[in-house]
Amino acid sequence: MSLNINSNINKFKIALCQLKVVDNKFSNLKNVEKFINNSIQKGNPDIIVLPEFFNCPMGLSYVIKYSEEEHNSESLNLISSLAKKNQKYIVAGSIPIKDTNPIKKSYYNSSFIFDRKGEIIARHNKIHLFDIDIPGKMTFKESSLLSAGNNYTYFETEFCKIGIGICYDIRFPEYCQILKKEKNIDLMIYPAAFSTTTGPMHWELLARSRALDNNIHLAICSPARNTENPNIYQCYGFSSIYDPFAKCLATTSYEEDIVFAEIDLQLNRDIESQIPTLKQKRNDLYELKLNLSEKAKF
Amino acid sequence: MSLNINSNINKFKIALCQLKVVDNKFSNLKNVEKFINNSIQKGNPDIIVLPEFFNCPMGLSYVIKYSEEEHNSESLNLISSLAKKNQKYIVAGSIPIKDTNPIKKSYYNSSFIFDRKGEIIARHNKIHLFDIDIPGKMTFKESSLLSAGNNYTYFETEFCKIGIGICYDIRFPEYCQILKKEKNIDLMIYPAAFSTTTGPMHWELLARSRALDNNIHLAICSPARNTENPNIYQCYGFSSIYDPFAKCLATTSYEEDIVFAEIDLQLNRDIESQIPTLKQKRNDLYELKLNLSEKAKF
Repeated sequence: MSLNINSNINKFKIALCQLKVVDNKFSNLKNVEKFINNSIQKGNPDIIVLPEFFNCPMGLSYVIKYSEEEHNSESLNLISSLAKKNQKYIVAGSIPIKDTNPIKKSYYNSSFIFDRKGEIIARHNKIHLFDIDIPGKMTFKESSLLSAGNNYTYFETEFCKIGIGICYDIRFPEYCQILKKEKNIDLMIYPAAFSTTTGPMHWELLARSRALDNNIHLAICSPARNTENPNIYQCYGFSSIYDPFAKCLATTSYEEDIVFAEIDLQLNRDIESQIPTLKQKRNDLYELKLNLSEKAKF
Repeated sequence: MSLNINSNINKFKIALCQLKVVDNKFSNLKNVEKFINNSIQKGNPDIIVLPEFFNCPMGLSYVIKYSEEEHNSESLNLISSLAKKNQKYIVAGSIPIKDTNPIKKSYYNSSFIFDRKGEIIARHNKIHLFDIDIPGKMTFKESSLLSAGNNYTYFETEFCKIGIGICYDIRFPEYCQILKKEKNIDLMIYPAAFSTTTGPMHWELLARSRALDNNIHLAICSPARNTENPNIYQCYGFSSIYDPFAKCLATTSYEEDIVFAEIDLQLNRDIESQIPTLKQKRNDLYELKLNLSEKAKF
Protein backbone atom coordinates (compact mmCIF):
# COMPACT_ATOMS: atom_id res chain seq x y z
CA MET A 1 0.00 0.00 0.00
CA SER A 2 1.46 3.31 -1.04
CA LEU A 3 -0.02 6.77 -0.53
CA ASN A 4 0.57 9.71 -2.76
CA ILE A 5 2.77 12.03 -0.77
CA ASN A 6 1.63 15.56 -1.45
CA SER A 7 4.78 17.62 -1.61
CA ASN A 8 2.75 20.82 -1.36
CA ILE A 9 1.77 20.01 2.21
CA ASN A 10 4.89 20.95 4.09
CA LYS A 11 3.44 21.40 7.53
CA PHE A 12 1.62 19.10 9.89
CA LYS A 13 1.05 18.78 13.61
CA ILE A 14 2.09 16.08 16.03
CA ALA A 15 1.14 15.45 19.66
CA LEU A 16 3.02 13.26 22.15
CA CYS A 17 0.90 11.89 25.00
CA GLN A 18 3.10 11.60 28.08
CA LEU A 19 0.64 9.71 30.24
CA LYS A 20 1.14 7.90 33.52
CA VAL A 21 0.86 4.12 33.46
CA VAL A 22 -0.39 2.21 36.52
CA ASP A 23 -0.86 -1.47 37.36
CA ASN A 24 -4.43 -1.59 36.04
CA LYS A 25 -5.15 -2.03 32.35
CA PHE A 26 -8.68 -0.67 32.55
CA SER A 27 -7.41 2.58 34.11
CA ASN A 28 -4.62 2.83 31.57
CA LEU A 29 -6.97 2.53 28.63
CA LYS A 30 -9.35 5.08 30.12
CA ASN A 31 -6.38 7.41 30.45
CA VAL A 32 -5.29 6.80 26.86
CA GLU A 33 -8.76 7.74 25.66
CA LYS A 34 -8.69 10.91 27.77
CA PHE A 35 -5.26 11.93 26.45
CA ILE A 36 -6.18 11.31 22.82
CA ASN A 37 -9.37 13.34 23.18
CA ASN A 38 -7.52 16.14 25.00
CA SER A 39 -4.80 16.29 22.39
CA ILE A 40 -7.41 16.74 19.66
CA GLN A 41 -9.30 19.37 21.62
CA LYS A 42 -6.18 21.36 22.48
CA GLY A 43 -4.06 21.07 19.33
CA ASN A 44 -5.93 19.20 16.59
CA PRO A 45 -2.82 17.21 15.58
CA ASP A 46 -2.52 15.07 12.46
CA ILE A 47 -0.48 12.43 14.28
CA ILE A 48 -0.93 11.36 17.90
CA VAL A 49 1.82 9.36 19.61
CA LEU A 50 1.56 7.16 22.70
CA PRO A 51 4.57 5.99 24.74
CA GLU A 52 6.17 2.56 25.02
CA PHE A 53 4.08 0.20 27.18
CA PHE A 54 1.11 2.57 27.38
CA ASN A 55 -1.21 -0.12 28.74
CA CYS A 56 1.23 -1.97 31.04
CA PRO A 57 3.84 -0.90 33.63
CA MET A 58 7.46 -1.27 32.48
CA GLY A 59 8.92 -4.49 33.84
CA LEU A 60 9.06 -8.08 32.68
CA SER A 61 6.89 -9.29 35.55
CA TYR A 62 3.89 -7.53 33.95
CA VAL A 63 4.36 -8.77 30.39
CA ILE A 64 2.50 -12.09 30.46
CA LYS A 65 -0.44 -10.74 32.45
CA TYR A 66 -0.90 -7.70 30.19
CA SER A 67 -0.06 -9.23 26.83
CA GLU A 68 -2.72 -9.44 24.13
CA GLU A 69 -3.00 -11.06 20.71
CA GLU A 70 -2.97 -8.69 17.75
CA HIS A 71 -6.28 -9.82 16.32
CA ASN A 72 -8.09 -9.96 19.61
CA SER A 73 -6.73 -6.95 21.44
CA GLU A 74 -8.81 -4.75 23.68
CA SER A 75 -6.09 -2.08 23.59
CA LEU A 76 -5.69 -2.02 19.83
CA ASN A 77 -9.44 -2.07 19.27
CA LEU A 78 -9.76 1.05 21.39
CA ILE A 79 -7.02 2.87 19.45
CA SER A 80 -8.52 1.82 16.15
CA SER A 81 -11.91 3.21 17.06
CA LEU A 82 -10.38 6.51 18.25
CA ALA A 83 -8.27 6.86 15.08
CA LYS A 84 -11.32 6.20 12.88
CA LYS A 85 -13.71 8.41 14.81
CA ASN A 86 -11.30 11.36 14.80
CA GLN A 87 -9.62 10.59 11.45
CA LYS A 88 -6.13 10.84 12.94
CA TYR A 89 -2.93 8.86 12.54
CA ILE A 90 -2.14 7.20 15.86
CA VAL A 91 1.25 5.69 16.69
CA ALA A 92 0.22 3.30 19.42
CA GLY A 93 3.50 3.45 21.35
CA SER A 94 3.92 -0.16 22.28
CA ILE A 95 2.22 -2.98 24.14
CA PRO A 96 3.27 -6.51 25.03
CA ILE A 97 2.00 -8.82 22.30
CA LYS A 98 1.60 -12.58 22.45
CA ASP A 99 2.05 -14.31 19.11
CA THR A 100 0.75 -17.83 19.07
CA ASN A 101 2.44 -20.21 16.76
CA PRO A 102 2.35 -23.99 16.58
CA ILE A 103 5.73 -24.45 18.24
CA LYS A 104 5.78 -21.96 21.07
CA LYS A 105 4.35 -18.70 22.29
CA SER A 106 6.45 -15.63 21.56
CA TYR A 107 6.15 -12.29 23.27
CA TYR A 108 7.06 -9.06 21.49
CA ASN A 109 7.31 -5.41 22.42
CA SER A 110 5.26 -4.08 19.52
CA SER A 111 4.15 -0.75 18.13
CA PHE A 112 1.09 -0.50 15.88
CA ILE A 113 0.40 2.42 13.58
CA PHE A 114 -3.20 3.30 12.67
CA ASP A 115 -4.27 5.42 9.72
CA ARG A 116 -7.14 7.89 9.60
CA LYS A 117 -9.59 5.05 8.91
CA GLY A 118 -8.51 3.16 12.03
CA GLU A 119 -6.66 0.51 10.08
CA ILE A 120 -3.29 -0.91 11.10
CA ILE A 121 -0.78 0.18 8.45
CA ALA A 122 2.44 -0.89 10.17
CA ARG A 123 3.66 -2.99 13.07
CA HIS A 124 7.11 -2.68 14.62
CA ASN A 125 8.54 -5.37 16.87
CA LYS A 126 11.40 -3.83 18.89
CA ILE A 127 14.51 -5.16 17.19
CA HIS A 128 17.12 -4.30 19.84
CA LEU A 129 16.09 -5.78 23.18
CA PHE A 130 16.93 -3.85 26.33
CA ASP A 131 19.65 -5.87 28.04
CA ILE A 132 21.80 -3.67 30.24
CA ASP A 133 23.56 -4.09 33.58
CA ILE A 134 24.83 -1.04 35.45
CA PRO A 135 25.72 -2.54 38.85
CA GLY A 136 23.95 -0.92 41.77
CA LYS A 137 21.88 1.29 39.48
CA MET A 138 19.97 -0.59 36.86
CA THR A 139 19.68 -4.10 35.46
CA PHE A 140 17.18 -5.18 32.79
CA LYS A 141 17.13 -8.25 30.56
CA GLU A 142 14.26 -7.96 28.12
CA SER A 143 15.60 -10.88 26.06
CA SER A 144 14.91 -13.29 28.92
CA LEU A 145 11.23 -13.16 27.99
CA LEU A 146 10.72 -11.23 24.76
CA SER A 147 11.66 -12.11 21.20
CA ALA A 148 13.36 -9.52 19.01
CA GLY A 149 11.75 -8.24 15.82
CA ASN A 150 13.42 -8.48 12.45
CA ASN A 151 11.80 -5.67 10.53
CA TYR A 152 12.48 -2.07 9.53
CA THR A 153 9.30 -0.12 10.09
CA TYR A 154 7.97 3.02 8.48
CA PHE A 155 4.62 4.28 7.28
CA GLU A 156 3.46 6.71 4.65
CA THR A 157 1.25 9.72 5.14
CA GLU A 158 0.15 12.48 2.76
CA PHE A 159 3.01 14.57 4.23
CA CYS A 160 6.06 12.31 4.26
CA LYS A 161 7.42 8.92 5.24
CA ILE A 162 7.81 8.32 8.96
CA GLY A 163 10.11 5.77 10.62
CA ILE A 164 9.35 3.92 13.85
CA GLY A 165 11.71 2.49 16.47
CA ILE A 166 11.08 1.52 20.07
CA CYS A 167 13.23 2.84 22.94
CA TYR A 168 16.54 0.88 22.96
CA ASP A 169 16.45 0.87 19.14
CA ILE A 170 17.54 4.53 19.37
CA ARG A 171 20.97 3.52 20.71
CA PHE A 172 21.78 1.89 17.36
CA PRO A 173 22.49 4.60 14.78
CA GLU A 174 22.35 2.15 11.88
CA TYR A 175 18.61 1.46 12.21
CA CYS A 176 17.64 5.08 11.70
CA GLN A 177 20.34 5.62 9.05
CA ILE A 178 18.97 2.72 6.98
CA LEU A 179 15.42 4.11 7.15
CA LYS A 180 16.73 7.46 5.90
CA LYS A 181 18.94 5.97 3.23
CA GLU A 182 16.52 3.39 1.84
CA LYS A 183 13.15 5.09 2.38
CA ASN A 184 14.02 8.77 2.79
CA ILE A 185 11.98 9.26 5.95
CA ASP A 186 11.57 12.88 7.11
CA LEU A 187 10.46 12.11 10.65
CA MET A 188 11.45 9.38 13.09
CA ILE A 189 9.29 8.52 16.08
CA TYR A 190 10.55 6.54 19.06
CA PRO A 191 7.99 5.53 21.70
CA ALA A 192 10.33 4.89 24.62
CA ALA A 193 10.69 4.57 28.37
CA PHE A 194 14.20 5.52 29.41
CA SER A 195 14.86 5.25 33.13
CA THR A 196 15.91 7.91 35.61
CA THR A 197 19.44 6.41 35.39
CA THR A 198 20.02 6.52 31.62
CA GLY A 199 17.58 9.34 30.84
CA PRO A 200 19.56 12.24 32.31
CA MET A 201 22.74 10.97 30.60
CA HIS A 202 21.54 10.03 27.13
CA TRP A 203 17.86 10.71 26.30
CA GLU A 204 18.24 14.15 24.75
CA LEU A 205 21.69 13.40 23.31
CA LEU A 206 20.55 10.33 21.38
CA ALA A 207 17.45 12.01 20.01
CA ARG A 208 19.25 15.17 18.90
CA SER A 209 22.14 13.31 17.28
CA ARG A 210 19.89 10.96 15.28
CA ALA A 211 17.95 14.02 14.05
CA LEU A 212 21.10 15.90 13.05
CA ASP A 213 22.98 12.98 11.48
CA ASN A 214 20.02 12.03 9.30
CA ASN A 215 18.50 15.44 8.55
CA ILE A 216 15.13 14.44 9.98
CA HIS A 217 12.64 15.65 12.53
CA LEU A 218 12.51 13.31 15.51
CA ALA A 219 10.04 12.67 18.33
CA ILE A 220 10.57 10.70 21.54
CA CYS A 221 7.52 9.87 23.65
CA SER A 222 7.86 8.56 27.21
CA PRO A 223 5.33 7.65 29.90
CA ALA A 224 5.09 10.12 32.79
CA ARG A 225 6.93 9.22 35.98
CA ASN A 226 4.91 7.36 38.58
CA THR A 227 6.23 9.08 41.69
CA GLU A 228 3.50 7.64 43.93
CA ASN A 229 4.94 4.17 43.61
CA PRO A 230 8.74 4.43 43.93
CA ASN A 231 9.12 0.64 43.85
CA ILE A 232 8.26 0.36 40.16
CA TYR A 233 10.41 1.32 37.17
CA GLN A 234 10.67 5.10 37.10
CA CYS A 235 10.31 6.45 33.57
CA TYR A 236 12.38 9.51 32.72
CA GLY A 237 9.65 11.53 30.99
CA PHE A 238 10.81 14.60 29.00
CA SER A 239 8.99 13.67 25.78
CA SER A 240 10.37 15.96 23.08
CA ILE A 241 10.35 16.90 19.42
CA TYR A 242 13.50 18.06 17.59
CA ASP A 243 14.07 19.58 14.18
CA PRO A 244 16.79 18.40 11.73
CA PHE A 245 19.26 20.94 13.13
CA ALA A 246 18.75 19.19 16.51
CA LYS A 247 16.91 22.20 17.91
CA CYS A 248 14.20 21.40 20.44
CA LEU A 249 10.75 22.36 19.12
CA ALA A 250 8.85 21.26 22.22
CA THR A 251 9.50 19.37 25.44
CA THR A 252 8.16 18.89 28.96
CA SER A 253 9.19 17.65 32.40
CA TYR A 254 8.35 14.25 33.94
CA GLU A 255 4.70 14.73 34.84
CA GLU A 256 1.66 13.97 32.70
CA ASP A 257 1.50 16.35 29.74
CA ILE A 258 0.87 16.55 26.01
CA VAL A 259 3.72 17.90 23.88
CA PHE A 260 2.69 19.60 20.63
CA ALA A 261 4.75 20.74 17.67
CA GLU A 262 4.28 21.75 14.09
CA ILE A 263 6.67 19.93 11.76
CA ASP A 264 7.83 22.06 8.82
CA LEU A 265 9.30 19.81 6.13
CA GLN A 266 10.70 22.83 4.30
CA LEU A 267 13.37 22.86 7.00
CA ASN A 268 14.46 19.34 5.98
CA ARG A 269 14.78 20.57 2.40
CA ASP A 270 16.67 23.74 3.39
CA ILE A 271 19.21 21.93 5.57
CA GLU A 272 19.71 19.31 2.87
CA SER A 273 21.28 22.04 0.75
CA GLN A 274 22.91 24.06 3.55
CA ILE A 275 24.88 21.30 5.30
CA PRO A 276 24.55 18.52 2.71
CA THR A 277 26.25 15.73 4.65
CA LEU A 278 23.93 13.04 3.28
CA LYS A 279 25.18 13.80 -0.23
CA GLN A 280 28.79 14.18 0.89
CA LYS A 281 29.20 10.71 2.37
CA ARG A 282 32.33 8.94 1.20
CA ASN A 283 30.76 5.76 -0.15
CA ASP A 284 34.11 4.93 -1.72
CA LEU A 285 35.44 4.50 1.86
CA TYR A 286 32.45 3.18 3.80
CA GLU A 287 28.87 2.15 3.19
CA LEU A 288 26.05 1.14 5.42
CA LYS A 289 24.51 -1.98 3.90
CA LEU A 290 21.03 -3.27 4.37
CA ASN A 291 21.19 -6.97 5.22
CA LEU A 292 17.93 -8.75 4.79
CA SER A 293 17.76 -12.38 5.68
CA GLU A 294 14.85 -14.69 4.93
CA LYS A 295 13.13 -13.71 8.14
CA ALA A 296 13.40 -9.97 7.67
CA LYS A 297 10.75 -7.84 6.02
CA PHE A 298 11.06 -4.28 4.72
CA MET B 1 54.89 -0.59 12.81
CA SER B 2 53.03 -1.96 15.78
CA LEU B 3 53.58 -1.14 19.42
CA ASN B 4 52.88 -3.50 22.24
CA ILE B 5 49.84 -2.06 23.94
CA ASN B 6 50.32 -2.50 27.67
CA SER B 7 46.92 -3.37 29.03
CA ASN B 8 48.12 -2.68 32.56
CA ILE B 9 48.46 1.01 31.82
CA ASN B 10 44.87 2.13 32.00
CA LYS B 11 45.41 5.80 32.64
CA PHE B 12 47.14 8.53 30.68
CA LYS B 13 46.95 12.29 30.37
CA ILE B 14 46.01 14.45 27.43
CA ALA B 15 46.28 18.22 26.90
CA LEU B 16 44.44 20.27 24.26
CA CYS B 17 46.15 23.53 23.26
CA GLN B 18 43.44 26.06 22.41
CA LEU B 19 45.74 28.73 21.01
CA LYS B 20 44.95 31.84 19.02
CA VAL B 21 46.03 31.89 15.39
CA VAL B 22 46.99 35.18 13.68
CA ASP B 23 48.05 36.14 10.15
CA ASN B 24 51.75 35.62 10.85
CA LYS B 25 53.31 32.16 10.70
CA PHE B 26 56.35 33.09 12.79
CA SER B 27 54.11 34.33 15.63
CA ASN B 28 51.93 31.24 15.37
CA LEU B 29 54.88 28.87 15.67
CA LYS B 30 56.27 30.82 18.63
CA ASN B 31 52.86 30.48 20.26
CA VAL B 32 52.72 26.74 19.55
CA GLU B 33 56.09 26.31 21.26
CA LYS B 34 54.90 28.32 24.27
CA PHE B 35 51.68 26.28 24.56
CA ILE B 36 53.46 22.93 24.29
CA ASN B 37 55.99 23.96 26.94
CA ASN B 38 53.26 25.31 29.21
CA SER B 39 51.17 22.16 28.85
CA ILE B 40 54.15 20.06 29.95
CA GLN B 41 54.96 22.35 32.85
CA LYS B 42 51.38 22.48 34.10
CA GLY B 43 50.12 18.98 33.50
CA ASN B 44 52.87 16.71 32.16
CA PRO B 45 50.55 15.08 29.59
CA ASP B 46 51.41 11.99 27.54
CA ILE B 47 49.63 13.34 24.47
CA ILE B 48 49.52 16.99 23.39
CA VAL B 49 46.96 18.08 20.81
CA LEU B 50 47.02 21.20 18.59
CA PRO B 51 43.97 22.54 16.74
CA GLU B 52 43.11 22.51 13.03
CA PHE B 53 45.16 25.10 11.10
CA PHE B 54 47.44 25.91 14.03
CA ASN B 55 49.92 27.77 11.85
CA CYS B 56 47.51 29.52 9.46
CA PRO B 57 44.25 31.46 9.84
CA MET B 58 41.13 29.57 8.75
CA GLY B 59 40.15 30.64 5.24
CA LEU B 60 41.03 29.49 1.76
CA SER B 61 42.75 32.79 0.93
CA TYR B 62 45.56 31.86 3.34
CA VAL B 63 46.15 28.29 2.16
CA ILE B 64 48.61 28.79 -0.69
CA LYS B 65 50.71 31.36 1.19
CA TYR B 66 50.94 29.22 4.34
CA SER B 67 51.21 25.79 2.76
CA GLU B 68 54.37 23.71 3.23
CA GLU B 69 55.71 20.46 1.83
CA GLU B 70 55.80 17.52 4.25
CA HIS B 71 59.53 16.86 3.90
CA ASN B 72 60.57 20.48 4.04
CA SER B 73 58.23 21.92 6.62
CA GLU B 74 59.24 24.54 9.13
CA SER B 75 56.09 23.84 11.17
CA LEU B 76 56.52 20.06 11.26
CA ASN B 77 60.23 20.32 12.04
CA LEU B 78 59.39 22.43 15.08
CA ILE B 79 56.81 19.94 16.34
CA SER B 80 59.16 17.03 15.74
CA SER B 81 61.90 18.66 17.81
CA LEU B 82 59.48 19.44 20.65
CA ALA B 83 58.09 15.89 20.66
CA LYS B 84 61.59 14.42 20.73
CA LYS B 85 63.00 16.80 23.34
CA ASN B 86 60.06 16.22 25.70
CA GLN B 87 59.35 12.60 24.73
CA LYS B 88 55.65 13.28 24.17
CA TYR B 89 53.12 12.24 21.57
CA ILE B 90 52.01 15.32 19.66
CA VAL B 91 48.92 15.41 17.44
CA ALA B 92 49.84 18.33 15.23
CA GLY B 93 46.25 19.51 14.61
CA SER B 94 46.43 20.36 10.95
CA ILE B 95 48.27 22.59 8.50
CA PRO B 96 47.84 23.27 4.79
CA ILE B 97 50.13 20.91 2.89
CA LYS B 98 51.30 21.19 -0.69
CA ASP B 99 51.94 17.85 -2.36
CA THR B 100 53.96 18.15 -5.51
CA ASN B 101 53.35 15.55 -8.13
CA PRO B 102 54.27 15.46 -11.79
CA ILE B 103 50.81 16.39 -13.02
CA LYS B 104 49.62 19.08 -10.70
CA LYS B 105 50.04 20.51 -7.22
CA SER B 106 47.52 19.31 -4.67
CA TYR B 107 46.72 21.00 -1.39
CA TYR B 108 45.53 19.04 1.63
CA ASN B 109 44.32 19.85 5.10
CA SER B 110 46.60 17.42 6.94
CA SER B 111 47.24 16.28 10.48
CA PHE B 112 50.58 14.72 11.44
CA ILE B 113 51.11 12.60 14.53
CA PHE B 114 54.54 12.47 16.18
CA ASP B 115 55.73 9.81 18.58
CA ARG B 116 57.97 10.30 21.61
CA LYS B 117 61.05 10.18 19.38
CA GLY B 118 59.78 13.01 17.21
CA GLU B 119 58.99 10.75 14.28
CA ILE B 120 55.87 11.03 12.16
CA ILE B 121 53.81 7.87 12.77
CA ALA B 122 50.61 8.87 10.98
CA ARG B 123 49.27 11.47 8.57
CA HIS B 124 45.58 12.22 8.07
CA ASN B 125 44.33 14.16 5.07
CA LYS B 126 40.85 15.47 5.90
CA ILE B 127 38.52 13.16 4.00
CA HIS B 128 35.29 15.17 4.18
CA LEU B 129 35.87 18.68 2.85
CA PHE B 130 33.99 21.53 4.42
CA ASP B 131 31.46 22.65 1.82
CA ILE B 132 28.46 24.30 3.42
CA ASP B 133 26.17 27.18 2.53
CA ILE B 134 23.90 28.70 5.15
CA PRO B 135 22.65 31.84 3.39
CA GLY B 136 23.36 35.06 5.27
CA LYS B 137 25.33 33.22 7.94
CA MET B 138 28.12 31.12 6.58
CA THR B 139 29.47 29.85 3.27
CA PHE B 140 32.63 27.80 2.85
CA LYS B 141 33.82 25.66 -0.06
CA GLU B 142 37.02 23.91 0.92
CA SER B 143 36.83 21.64 -2.14
CA SER B 144 37.37 24.62 -4.45
CA LEU B 145 41.07 24.51 -3.50
CA LEU B 146 41.81 21.44 -1.40
CA SER B 147 41.89 17.77 -2.33
CA ALA B 148 40.16 15.23 -0.08
CA GLY B 149 42.11 12.47 1.61
CA ASN B 150 41.30 8.80 1.15
CA ASN B 151 42.64 7.26 4.30
CA TYR B 152 41.43 6.08 7.71
CA THR B 153 43.92 7.29 10.28
CA TYR B 154 44.85 5.97 13.68
CA PHE B 155 48.03 5.51 15.68
CA GLU B 156 49.18 3.16 18.39
CA THR B 157 50.52 4.09 21.79
CA GLU B 158 51.48 1.95 24.79
CA PHE B 159 48.01 2.76 26.17
CA CYS B 160 45.58 2.15 23.31
CA LYS B 161 44.80 2.86 19.68
CA ILE B 162 43.76 6.41 18.88
CA GLY B 163 41.77 7.56 15.84
CA ILE B 164 42.21 10.90 14.08
CA GLY B 165 39.71 12.96 12.08
CA ILE B 166 39.73 16.63 11.15
CA CYS B 167 36.78 18.94 11.87
CA TYR B 168 34.05 18.29 9.25
CA ASP B 169 34.96 14.56 9.39
CA ILE B 170 33.08 14.50 12.74
CA ARG B 171 29.75 15.09 10.97
CA PHE B 172 30.04 11.66 9.31
CA PRO B 173 29.33 8.96 11.90
CA GLU B 174 30.61 6.18 9.64
CA TYR B 175 34.26 7.32 9.75
CA CYS B 176 34.51 6.99 13.51
CA GLN B 177 32.39 3.82 13.55
CA ILE B 178 34.77 2.13 11.09
CA LEU B 179 37.80 3.05 13.21
CA LYS B 180 36.09 1.50 16.24
CA LYS B 181 34.90 -1.58 14.40
CA GLU B 182 38.06 -2.37 12.45
CA LYS B 183 40.78 -1.12 14.81
CA ASN B 184 39.07 -0.98 18.21
CA ILE B 185 40.22 2.55 19.01
CA ASP B 186 39.59 3.72 22.59
CA LEU B 187 40.05 7.44 21.95
CA MET B 188 39.18 9.63 18.99
CA ILE B 189 40.79 13.04 18.51
CA TYR B 190 39.38 15.70 16.19
CA PRO B 191 41.46 18.82 15.66
CA ALA B 192 38.75 21.19 14.44
CA ALA B 193 37.67 24.78 13.92
CA PHE B 194 33.89 25.02 14.06
CA SER B 195 32.54 28.53 13.53
CA THR B 196 30.42 30.70 15.81
CA THR B 197 27.44 29.72 13.60
CA THR B 198 27.67 25.92 13.71
CA GLY B 199 29.56 25.64 17.02
CA PRO B 200 26.72 26.62 19.37
CA MET B 201 24.35 24.27 17.52
CA HIS B 202 26.42 21.15 16.98
CA TRP B 203 29.97 21.13 18.46
CA GLU B 204 29.19 19.48 21.78
CA LEU B 205 26.37 17.34 20.36
CA LEU B 206 28.52 15.74 17.67
CA ALA B 207 31.42 15.06 20.03
CA ARG B 208 29.25 13.55 22.76
CA SER B 209 27.25 11.37 20.38
CA ARG B 210 30.32 9.93 18.65
CA ALA B 211 31.78 9.10 22.09
CA LEU B 212 28.58 7.43 23.28
CA ASP B 213 27.76 5.53 20.10
CA ASN B 214 31.26 4.05 19.88
CA ASN B 215 32.13 3.59 23.55
CA ILE B 216 35.24 5.74 23.25
CA HIS B 217 36.82 8.76 24.88
CA LEU B 218 36.79 11.72 22.52
CA ALA B 219 38.69 15.02 22.32
CA ILE B 220 37.93 18.05 20.17
CA CYS B 221 40.57 20.79 19.94
CA SER B 222 39.77 24.22 18.47
CA PRO B 223 41.80 27.40 18.01
CA ALA B 224 40.86 30.24 20.37
CA ARG B 225 38.62 32.98 19.00
CA ASN B 226 40.40 35.97 17.51
CA THR B 227 38.11 38.70 18.80
CA GLU B 228 40.56 41.49 17.91
CA ASN B 229 39.98 40.90 14.22
CA PRO B 230 36.23 40.38 13.66
CA ASN B 231 36.69 40.28 9.88
CA ILE B 232 38.36 36.88 9.91
CA TYR B 233 36.75 33.48 10.49
CA GLN B 234 35.71 33.31 14.14
CA CYS B 235 36.50 29.93 15.66
CA TYR B 236 34.07 28.61 18.23
CA GLY B 237 36.60 27.48 20.86
CA PHE B 238 35.26 25.25 23.67
CA SER B 239 37.88 22.51 23.27
CA SER B 240 36.65 19.54 25.30
CA ILE B 241 37.24 15.96 26.36
CA TYR B 242 34.38 13.48 26.86
CA ASP B 243 34.24 10.00 28.34
CA PRO B 244 32.43 7.04 26.70
CA PHE B 245 29.22 7.84 28.61
CA ALA B 246 29.38 11.28 26.89
CA LYS B 247 30.18 12.99 30.17
CA CYS B 248 32.39 16.08 29.88
CA LEU B 249 35.76 15.52 31.60
CA ALA B 250 37.14 18.97 30.84
CA THR B 251 36.24 22.00 28.73
CA THR B 252 36.87 25.74 28.43
CA SER B 253 35.41 28.88 26.87
CA TYR B 254 36.62 30.62 23.67
CA GLU B 255 39.79 32.28 24.89
CA GLU B 256 43.32 30.85 24.88
CA ASP B 257 43.60 27.97 27.33
CA ILE B 258 44.95 24.46 27.79
CA VAL B 259 42.39 21.74 28.58
CA PHE B 260 43.71 18.77 30.58
CA ALA B 261 42.13 15.42 31.36
CA GLU B 262 43.12 12.01 32.55
CA ILE B 263 41.74 9.25 30.35
CA ASP B 264 40.80 6.10 32.29
CA LEU B 265 40.47 3.18 29.88
CA GLN B 266 38.87 1.06 32.59
CA LEU B 267 35.74 3.11 31.96
CA ASN B 268 35.68 1.93 28.31
CA ARG B 269 35.88 -1.66 29.58
CA ASP B 270 33.18 -1.14 32.24
CA ILE B 271 30.69 0.45 29.85
CA GLU B 272 31.36 -2.25 27.29
CA SER B 273 29.73 -4.69 29.68
CA GLN B 274 27.13 -2.34 31.20
CA ILE B 275 25.47 -1.04 28.01
CA PRO B 276 26.94 -3.46 25.46
CA THR B 277 25.50 -1.89 22.31
CA LEU B 278 28.58 -2.69 20.24
CA LYS B 279 27.98 -6.40 20.84
CA GLN B 280 24.22 -6.09 20.40
CA LYS B 281 24.27 -4.68 16.87
CA ARG B 282 21.91 -6.49 14.50
CA ASN B 283 24.38 -7.42 11.79
CA ASP B 284 21.72 -9.66 10.30
CA LEU B 285 19.77 -6.48 9.47
CA TYR B 286 22.51 -3.91 8.77
CA GLU B 287 26.25 -3.72 8.55
CA LEU B 288 28.69 -0.91 8.08
CA LYS B 289 31.16 -2.03 5.42
CA LEU B 290 34.65 -0.79 4.88
CA ASN B 291 35.10 0.05 1.20
CA LEU B 292 38.68 0.36 0.15
CA SER B 293 39.44 1.30 -3.39
CA GLU B 294 42.89 1.24 -4.97
CA LYS B 295 43.62 4.74 -3.75
CA ALA B 296 42.64 4.17 -0.15
CA LYS B 297 45.02 3.09 2.57
CA PHE B 298 44.25 1.74 6.00
